[in-house]
Amino acid sequence: MAGSMTSPEMLTALHNKATQLRIESVRATTEAGSGHPSSCCSAADIVAALFFSVMRYDPTNPKAPNSDRFVLSKGHAAPLLYAAWAEAGLFPKSDLLKLRTLTSDLEGHPTPRLSFVDMATGSLGQGLPVGVGLALNAKSVDKTSYRTYVLMGDGESVEGSVWEAADVARHHRLDNLCAIVDVNRLGQSDPTMLEHDMEGYRARWAGFGWHAVVVDGHDMAALLAAFDSAARTTGQPTVLLAKTYKGRGVSIMENHPNWHGKPLAKGDEAQKALDELTAQLKPSTMALPITPPVAPPEKTGLVGMLAAPSYKLGEPVAPREAFGAALSALGDAYHHVVALDADVKNSTYTDKFGKKFPDRFFENFIAEQNMLGAAAGLAACGKVPFVATFAAFFTRAYDFIRMAAISQSNIKLVGTHVGVSIGEDGPSQMGLEDIAMMAAQPGVTVLYPADGTCTYRLVELAAQHKGMVYLRAGRPKCPTLYGPDEKFHIGGSKILRQSPTDVLTIIAAGVTLFEALKAHDQLKALGIAVRVIDLYSIVPLDRTTVIDSARTTQGRILTVEDHYAHGGLGDAVLDAVSTEGITVHKLAVRGIPHSGKPDELVDHFGIGARSIVETAKQIVK
Amino acid sequence: MAGSMTSPEMLTALHNKATQLRIESVRATTEAGSGHPSSCCSAADIVAALFFSVMRYDPTNPKAPNSDRFVLSKGHAAPLLYAAWAEAGLFPKSDLLKLRTLTSDLEGHPTPRLSFVDMATGSLGQGLPVGVGLALNAKSVDKTSYRTYVLMGDGESVEGSVWEAADVARHHRLDNLCAIVDVNRLGQSDPTMLEHDMEGYRARWAGFGWHAVVVDGHDMAALLAAFDSAARTTGQPTVLLAKTYKGRGVSIMENHPNWHGKPLAKGDEAQKALDELTAQLKPSTMALPITPPVAPPEKTGLVGMLAAPSYKLGEPVAPREAFGAALSALGDAYHHVVALDADVKNSTYTDKFGKKFPDRFFENFIAEQNMLGAAAGLAACGKVPFVATFAAFFTRAYDFIRMAAISQSNIKLVGTHVGVSIGEDGPSQMGLEDIAMMAAQPGVTVLYPADGTCTYRLVELAAQHKGMVYLRAGRPKCPTLYGPDEKFHIGGSKILRQSPTDVLTIIAAGVTLFEALKAHDQLKALGIAVRVIDLYSIVPLDRTTVIDSARTTQGRILTVEDHYAHGGLGDAVLDAVSTEGITVHKLAVRGIPHSGKPDELVDHFGIGARSIVETAKQIVK
Repeated sequence: MAGSMTSPEMLTALHNKATQLRIESVRATTEAGSGHPSSCCSAADIVAALFFSVMRYDPTNPKAPNSDRFVLSKGHAAPLLYAAWAEAGLFPKSDLLKLRTLTSDLEGHPTPRLSFVDMATGSLGQGLPVGVGLALNAKSVDKTSYRTYVLMGDGESVEGSVWEAADVARHHRLDNLCAIVDVNRLGQSDPTMLEHDMEGYRARWAGFGWHAVVVDGHDMAALLAAFDSAARTTGQPTVLLAKTYKGRGVSIMENHPNWHGKPLAKGDEAQKALDELTAQLKPSTMALPITPPVAPPEKTGLVGMLAAPSYKLGEPVAPREAFGAALSALGDAYHHVVALDADVKNSTYTDKFGKKFPDRFFENFIAEQNMLGAAAGLAACGKVPFVATFAAFFTRAYDFIRMAAISQSNIKLVGTHVGVSIGEDGPSQMGLEDIAMMAAQPGVTVLYPADGTCTYRLVELAAQHKGMVYLRAGRPKCPTLYGPDEKFHIGGSKILRQSPTDVLTIIAAGVTLFEALKAHDQLKALGIAVRVIDLYSIVPLDRTTVIDSARTTQGRILTVEDHYAHGGLGDAVLDAVSTEGITVHKLAVRGIPHSGKPDELVDHFGIGARSIVETAKQIVK
Repeated sequence: MAGSMTSPEMLTALHNKATQLRIESVRATTEAGSGHPSSCCSAADIVAALFFSVMRYDPTNPKAPNSDRFVLSKGHAAPLLYAAWAEAGLFPKSDLLKLRTLTSDLEGHPTPRLSFVDMATGSLGQGLPVGVGLALNAKSVDKTSYRTYVLMGDGESVEGSVWEAADVARHHRLDNLCAIVDVNRLGQSDPTMLEHDMEGYRARWAGFGWHAVVVDGHDMAALLAAFDSAARTTGQPTVLLAKTYKGRGVSIMENHPNWHGKPLAKGDEAQKALDELTAQLKPSTMALPITPPVAPPEKTGLVGMLAAPSYKLGEPVAPREAFGAALSALGDAYHHVVALDADVKNSTYTDKFGKKFPDRFFENFIAEQNMLGAAAGLAACGKVPFVATFAAFFTRAYDFIRMAAISQSNIKLVGTHVGVSIGEDGPSQMGLEDIAMMAAQPGVTVLYPADGTCTYRLVELAAQHKGMVYLRAGRPKCPTLYGPDEKFHIGGSKILRQSPTDVLTIIAAGVTLFEALKAHDQLKALGIAVRVIDLYSIVPLDRTTVIDSARTTQGRILTVEDHYAHGGLGDAVLDAVSTEGITVHKLAVRGIPHSGKPDELVDHFGIGARSIVETAKQIVK
């Protein structure tokens, strides 16, 4: 840490680094013809202080164990981040001029395509939750000494997710977390609400229990002292509220509105700015060596074998219960598995894991956005986070899910309480768009087990799979369909009923699978033979089995799902067969659901055995 | 208002009302066999004070103009709300025993199927943003005197959306808004983070600039005094931080964990609780008359005709610009139209409306959740809110969109900056799942205009349509396709190219429509005649035109969209033709996008003219 070592020579050298970062940011955005130089300039002194004095890291290996972490929450200041790493020596400065082009990973906003980025930013308010995850990992899981720094904008501090993270960070006493708010007064379209009311900022953060330090964000000595005070603070996180000027150092931009997201024009305008900045460089010969981290011994993740599920055929087990059991067993077998919940652990059954592994379980209270961001932070540290809540409440964190997908984050989401089959609690608690929202995201695996055995095995497969997974785990108890040795795989399906005279393939998953099985028997009694497929893997989808089945059942499919009609299981099947000339009839929840008894609602909303039988009769008529 | 009129007799009568509400809540949940009696009991005194002393409203007509508004943000306390309205005389108390059944609208959580509910609650943290909308309507739009009360739980105050609303409410100086936090210490699965740390709550709310009053939530005189102090406070909103006990009045439940969401068992357990509560009733003969509101004269919404769009054929116009122009023109024609933005008004072009109609424009800064909730609140007051931001950032508010759909709220969402065609800013700013998320919700109309004229007309149609609408308004300038007299309708489409020898129907919308037109010309030069449809209405979809076209083009469709492959335009088309034996090929964005130039990205991600031509050649081969 800095602090005692501060000297006038060092301050000059740091000032020059900051100026150099401004120069590179202006140059790159001008070359790109777009970007946010003014947002870079306000934060340049903060970033220079962190990268060239405060942080311990290896500039040739950003992922080196126990490195201090830096999250640029105000992702639009990406050129500043890129300039800092180039200045630190990770890659040639000439690369900076490829900013925002298709052939460079120095994109408009940072993504983990870059080795020094833990999570994509650019949707504001996400950095602090991610920082919470990084800090929880150090404090509770790895029990190591790295510190986490999150640089936010002032405009973004209106985002509620920031305050969720603030509350949870305080609760977990994350004194290894330091946030910095770059209070540059100007938003995109207007001044911010608080402008330079630093006391307003202080009151908010102090009110949330943080060590809140107001500092001049352009005074290098003051910044170093503030970072030092953060490092010496125990039992609570610190926020530096840095008063800055947008466009600092370039008189045409500095503290002027209408310079958000606008580069300086090539030619005179840019040259004048670069000349002005260059003139701010002071004579200095002092080097600023970067202190590398001390790496702890690595821990192994896999430490045992997962016990097999033990449900007897026919035994009533709720998928959510089987998830809880599998997660708890996973905790023993894989030390990298961690879990997060949001005050519903006694409904999602993550409480079993939490009791066994208190250091690897994180209660987020009712803060779903923070939960998702923290999970992505933990995943960036090599952990395998399972994140559970009611499926409906993942909608609260959809932007975080979107950004995690862009980041190819290795998080596993488990949504319980899906569909109308939850019953009496009514529409607000029913996840009916979760498949649509998850499957829309690139690279997300979507699983939907019907029974306890399948759920248990898919939880294991999810942990082993590298990438984002969503598992839909229903609320009601259902009879166990599969024996303990049954094999499942991502992209698989099971044909549960078939005969040589089948005239229709019924495809279902979760609760509606049992309705399909009932319908199968009723139709059989009517002399109509139908095939029934358990489509437990929705993305990827077992296209071969689906198409082959449909072809042998006169080219006809009927899908049934406890989900809204758009973007669910039915649409996934339709997509798989779209070029095959196969007809697909869809049963799904249409219209706004209602409170009632689960069975009654399944029937009422047209996804029960009665509707399946009626529809099948129509189709084969 | 109460205050000076408070007497011991009145306090006794109010205490009895609170006790009666507890009795009804226990009775109804026991009869239903599920529900949250303990969460009702903690808040019963607060609700009794509001309904039988503080609020001015018409108990026979909850929608009476200028009535004080009450939002039950902690929606799981629904039985308490229902009991209050029954007690006020709106419907017979015997109805309360139909709680949570399919044949009653007294659902597990409140929805606007009930005349006294403005917005569905039950997903926590949504009530305060809705309250902000109700209060903004009174203060800024209708300029009338009703007050808005929002009852929240303590657990839910961790939700970030609460703090977004807190910040925006303070900024707009909503002294007609009073929040109450029922601090009953216990969440669903654990005690809350702050438990009964009332100073912790006070510091947070005061830090956010609210008049924060800590009060004993079971002391009727203290509650009335606090509400009185709220009513007398000017220039800032008030929050009552009410220290309460969960399960208050029923000793088996009071302040005990594990009583969240659990009814008292039928028989002895429930009877004992009811006996205990009944014994708390005190002798009283005092009536508590409810003061009705004084209604202002009603204003008419429609005051003029919308000017026609004036774009010349071929003129380059960005759909987002045309949206801004139409919205501004709408402002003149319909006085009920209001607009909301979240610090991107100079990108969405809502700034034109904002400058002309400052009293009907609401800047939410970077607080998308509050923006959606406030819009739903304004819609509940008969306004027609247009809500604009980058399409990607609607993901931040998806839970609010979900609840607005359940509420059949009359809000109009406009997402700009859609798809890879935004270019250099990169994946974090690209809306690529917006059609999937919007179309999944029941009753939401999804429109996607390609040119300025169509955009302008669809904005008008959206305003006239009763129900939720999402309009996808692209960023780049595109040539104007339609003359000012062209007619559009919700559920319509336009065949832009056709010939008797067409062998394929290409369906596109937005930027890809222009790629399809280019491909049409290139294919024509190769001797391949294709039809091109502008599918500007995705939900509902012009099934007749699509099917008829496909049938006359050898049963083949090719869809092209600047959206992820799942849940977009292609899947909507697939669904429409799923039983017709028509083959559908889909071009969409697959994989994670990248920064680059718009045209370059459209081509690179396989949705440009080159890919259309190649795919079409394969299909017709």
